[in-house]
Amino acid sequence: MNEEKLSRARHSLSHLLGAAVLELYPGAKNAIGPAIATGFYYDFDLPSPVSDSALPKIEKKMRELAKDWEIFSEMEVSANEALKVFEKNKYKQELIEELRNKREKITLYYSGPRDSVPSKDDLLQAKSYKLKAGFLDLCRGGHADSIKDILPDSWKLFRLAGAYWRGHEKNKMLTRIYGLAFSSKKELEEHEKQMAEAEKRDHKKLGRELDLFLFSELVGAGLPLWTPKGTLIRDLLDDYVWELRQAKGYRRVTIPHLTKKELYEKSGHWQKFRNELFIIKSREGHTFALKPMNCPHHIEIFRRKLWSYRELPERYASTTMVYRDEQTGELSGITRTRSFTQDDAHVFCRMTQIEKEFGNIWDIVQTFYRTFGFELKVRLSSHDPKQMEKYLGTEEGWRKSESILENIARQKNTKFEEAVGEAAYYGPKIDFLGIDSLRREWQVATIQLDINQPERFDLHCVNEKGEKERIALIHAAIMGSIERFLSIYIEHTGGAFPLWLAPVQVAVLPVSEKQSAYAEKVSLTLKEAGIRAELDISNETLGKKVRQTKLAKIPYWLVIGEKEAAAKTAAIESRDRGSLGAKTIEEVKKLLLKETKERRQ
Amino acid sequence: MNEEKLSRARHSLSHLLGAAVLELYPGAKNAIGPAIATGFYYDFDLPSPVSDSALPKIEKKMRELAKDWEIFSEMEVSANEALKVFEKNKYKQELIEELRNKREKITLYYSGPRDSVPSKDDLLQAKSYKLKAGFLDLCRGGHADSIKDILPDSWKLFRLAGAYWRGHEKNKMLTRIYGLAFSSKKELEEHEKQMAEAEKRDHKKLGRELDLFLFSELVGAGLPLWTPKGTLIRDLLDDYVWELRQAKGYRRVTIPHLTKKELYEKSGHWQKFRNELFIIKSREGHTFALKPMNCPHHIEIFRRKLWSYRELPERYASTTMVYRDEQTGELSGITRTRSFTQDDAHVFCRMTQIEKEFGNIWDIVQTFYRTFGFELKVRLSSHDPKQMEKYLGTEEGWRKSESILENIARQKNTKFEEAVGEAAYYGPKIDFLGIDSLRREWQVATIQLDINQPERFDLHCVNEKGEKERIALIHAAIMGSIERFLSIYIEHTGGAFPLWLAPVQVAVLPVSEKQSAYAEKVSLTLKEAGIRAELDISNETLGKKVRQTKLAKIPYWLVIGEKEAAAKTAAIESRDRGSLGAKTIEEVKKLLLKETKERRQ
Repeated sequence: MNEEKLSRARHSLSHLLGAAVLELYPGAKNAIGPAIATGFYYDFDLPSPVSDSALPKIEKKMRELAKDWEIFSEMEVSANEALKVFEKNKYKQELIEELRNKREKITLYYSGPRDSVPSKDDLLQAKSYKLKAGFLDLCRGGHADSIKDILPDSWKLFRLAGAYWRGHEKNKMLTRIYGLAFSSKKELEEHEKQMAEAEKRDHKKLGRELDLFLFSELVGAGLPLWTPKGTLIRDLLDDYVWELRQAKGYRRVTIPHLTKKELYEKSGHWQKFRNELFIIKSREGHTFALKPMNCPHHIEIFRRKLWSYRELPERYASTTMVYRDEQTGELSGITRTRSFTQDDAHVFCRMTQIEKEFGNIWDIVQTFYRTFGFELKVRLSSHDPKQMEKYLGTEEGWRKSESILENIARQKNTKFEEAVGEAAYYGPKIDFLGIDSLRREWQVATIQLDINQPERFDLHCVNEKGEKERIALIHAAIMGSIERFLSIYIEHTGGAFPLWLAPVQVAVLPVSEKQSAYAEKVSLTLKEAGIRAELDISNETLGKKVRQTKLAKIPYWLVIGEKEAAAKTAAIESRDRGSLGAKTIEEVKKLLLKETKERRQ
Repeated sequence: MNEEKLSRARHSLSHLLGAAVLELYPGAKNAIGPAIATGFYYDFDLPSPVSDSALPKIEKKMRELAKDWEIFSEMEVSANEALKVFEKNKYKQELIEELRNKREKITLYYSGPRDSVPSKDDLLQAKSYKLKAGFLDLCRGGHADSIKDILPDSWKLFRLAGAYWRGHEKNKMLTRIYGLAFSSKKELEEHEKQMAEAEKRDHKKLGRELDLFLFSELVGAGLPLWTPKGTLIRDLLDDYVWELRQAKGYRRVTIPHLTKKELYEKSGHWQKFRNELFIIKSREGHTFALKPMNCPHHIEIFRRKLWSYRELPERYASTTMVYRDEQTGELSGITRTRSFTQDDAHVFCRMTQIEKEFGNIWDIVQTFYRTFGFELKVRLSSHDPKQMEKYLGTEEGWRKSESILENIARQKNTKFEEAVGEAAYYGPKIDFLGIDSLRREWQVATIQLDINQPERFDLHCVNEKGEKERIALIHAAIMGSIERFLSIYIEHTGGAFPLWLAPVQVAVLPVSEKQSAYAEKVSLTLKEAGIRAELDISNETLGKKVRQTKLAKIPYWLVIGEKEAAAKTAAIESRDRGSLGAKTIEEVKKLLLKETKERRQ
């Protein structure tokens, strides 16, 4: 089945779903039922709540009805006629009124047995619309020729959800029933398998199970709180980025999360991002904003003195939280939050230094993502010449900076795609897309060339001739946001972090109480070497202890029985490689320290 | 001179200042002129602006007038009479109206020659008040018997400042003239010497000179930005606190700077701190606040699960910025800011664990401040039983917690003072006062016992009997705020930081161009060892290079001349200990690394 045919089949199935629900739940009102990327859904206003347990009954009814659904038949009607047909359904009426206002054609679709197609008169003369058989819906069209063309084993219903009428929080919450539909049984099964895997790896679920982060109702949605384990991972990731940056001459600066609005008026953020800014009126009546990004603050640090060309490039890094007033409906786990932590950096350099600095950042990005096993794709995000009003600066300036970036990308001998209109409002970017273990693509790092903010803030140096020279500004984030990176990385690994990132690196498991003292000594020795060891001296059986360790996805565990205690060894097992045999504590220490230091995957 | 006599002398001098200014600047209006801790001042509304250069002229006039000022003479008058005398001075009139409203006695004071004391009639019959000689002021009294009793060399004028009438920003800005006055010439000179030293050490001045932090007009007052050098010091200080805490079982957590107001309603901050909160209305209409402290956020992390007594104490640390809506007039350098960084920690523990946890924090405080050469004084800050409405919880609960703190302090065998009414609103504290190199006292660290927020948030564990048991919360900051600590520490050291904290640890100074290559190699070797070395290959003379190094207060420098280059050595000099002779680079490295590691003062 090609894409269009599949989409028609999915849409047809949503009609079938509508018919089944209206028949099973008298008084139910059907709202909207489109095809979607993996199947279809239909929203209903039901007379009483239902749960997932109703799905088999509904699906059974669909399959029953499908037997007689031979055709889809279109009927054009006036708005008044349509309103009459749907006089008991306020949702359809709202849609009809909209179509009337937009002066669009209004069509109804009948589906059912070929011999029961109603005439317009049949419909409008009846007191309420009532068919002999089949189903009638307000619809734009785009169906299969017949439901019978769709393979019965290529689709199924799969879940219920709440959904606001037209997506607006202030409207009534309707019941949305989702179905999956593919070209074949095989494709349906493959999709279900991938969904099951993704669900197991869902970062929200794993974040809770592995005790990494949480949300509090009192603190608010979209404002994650990080536990000791989650904080440890965050800090280790940030240390790694810092290690790579430090080697390239970056230095850290520290900035407040607040600024007077004047800074953003000058930078252009006030005009551009106002809706997403958290805005504060102080008691003295000043207007402040929480920073949604860090460049203007870094720029103000740079502007504290006059720079000689000899001192450049000047490279600032800050790992710091930024704030955006996202709408509640758009928040999702730690992927989309109101507070997130950027590993942000800015390079102030001469035009002639852009290439080298971009290259350095590119190296950092590659080293960093290689460590985590992500493949990278490169994208050159340029401006859209048809929408110059979206950007700062001139067309000429944009072309110039984009050609610099293109040059850099070509020199890297990497395949890259160009994405017109994906630039930042101050300049073009090189974006890196990471491909995870489920073959999903995520935008991760970004390097941006900005020749517009230097104009606005008059950033310059004094050059060899003693003249004032305009400089360039490079924006670069390696993780982008720690939260987003972690949401991707948790799903990439399923929470089985490599040794260097694991909050607990090794569990020490004495077989019985008799080995407790020795096990404690082992644990202490490892801790003193800086290894995150955890001793389990509970009264549980070894089997249970090992299960707990595996559930917590701890990379290594040491089993210490009578034999090991006597020989001053431990039987070491790896989460990923199974049993590694008995080793002395010194050997264990070396093994763990080496693997940690190498940041092995 | 005793304190009271000195205060009378100072007050008398302010009259003399008033007289001199009115005589020198016809049309000037005198407002208020009190004695202060180091002398006196008088506020004037002058017909035209004056600068510091006017001070010698005014002081000369004062000394001239003083020759005839034999007495101070009181005269009680009615409000109407006083208003008539000061009919051309709106400031005095405002004061007189206030005295009338408060039904207080109104007195005028004459000072001048004994034979020119005016009678009341003289004054009131004249068209405008005019004396034959001397000076008349609205005043409560409290003067020296005669200006002649004050030693002429024990006082002087010293500066001008702007001051709003009655301290309110909306009022007119007056000219305040300050004078210094002490019991003797010696005391005056000592005070001036200390002032000069304090001025040299002023952290605002040194912060700029040493390039540690800055303020930007666009970002706003009270929101410091930290340069690479300042950030380095901040991070090193924080690393040190973390090292000490980690050894005591603390773990880091990460929290956003924002919360819904509901969190603070529950914690009591909303009611207590509302004026100082930066408050935000989101686009969806939710009310958020920037956090002014971290306890409620840490509490929410603790509340994510049910705790067994076996798992406690649970210790959370965060170094994180907090925000308070301070009034512009109260901001001062990095001592009092709108954004500051707390090195905050909270211990959740059983009542029986309080003592041990307090003891651990006390140890950290002592170790930390000893490293910087601060003497510590201990203060037990308790509640004020007469003002129970200021606090959460019951009198009984307060007594109990205060007796726990007293016990701990007694066991430490330390002298401590008690400060009634200095407790936090949720519990009593042990405060530490640091005494700096200028013998000034600063409140630094604090340990607070909180048995009230655990009630509000129902913090508990499950105890040995399987019962729910209320726990205690300990709040502890070691530096308090990094900004405040640094403001004190910069003045304590005058910016001559010890090696481990110095942004540049060693300057490498080749004598001539011929040694550049070797010097560069030396600098690189040191850098590779993690030493913050800076190479100066400018064309300046060695003398100038050394002067620059000293100005930047760099702890060590290596002079590399022909001899040293040939012998593969360097002549090492210390900022604090002078020349240390020629050493091999290996020796230099060892010396610097050892001193850094020891965090030597």
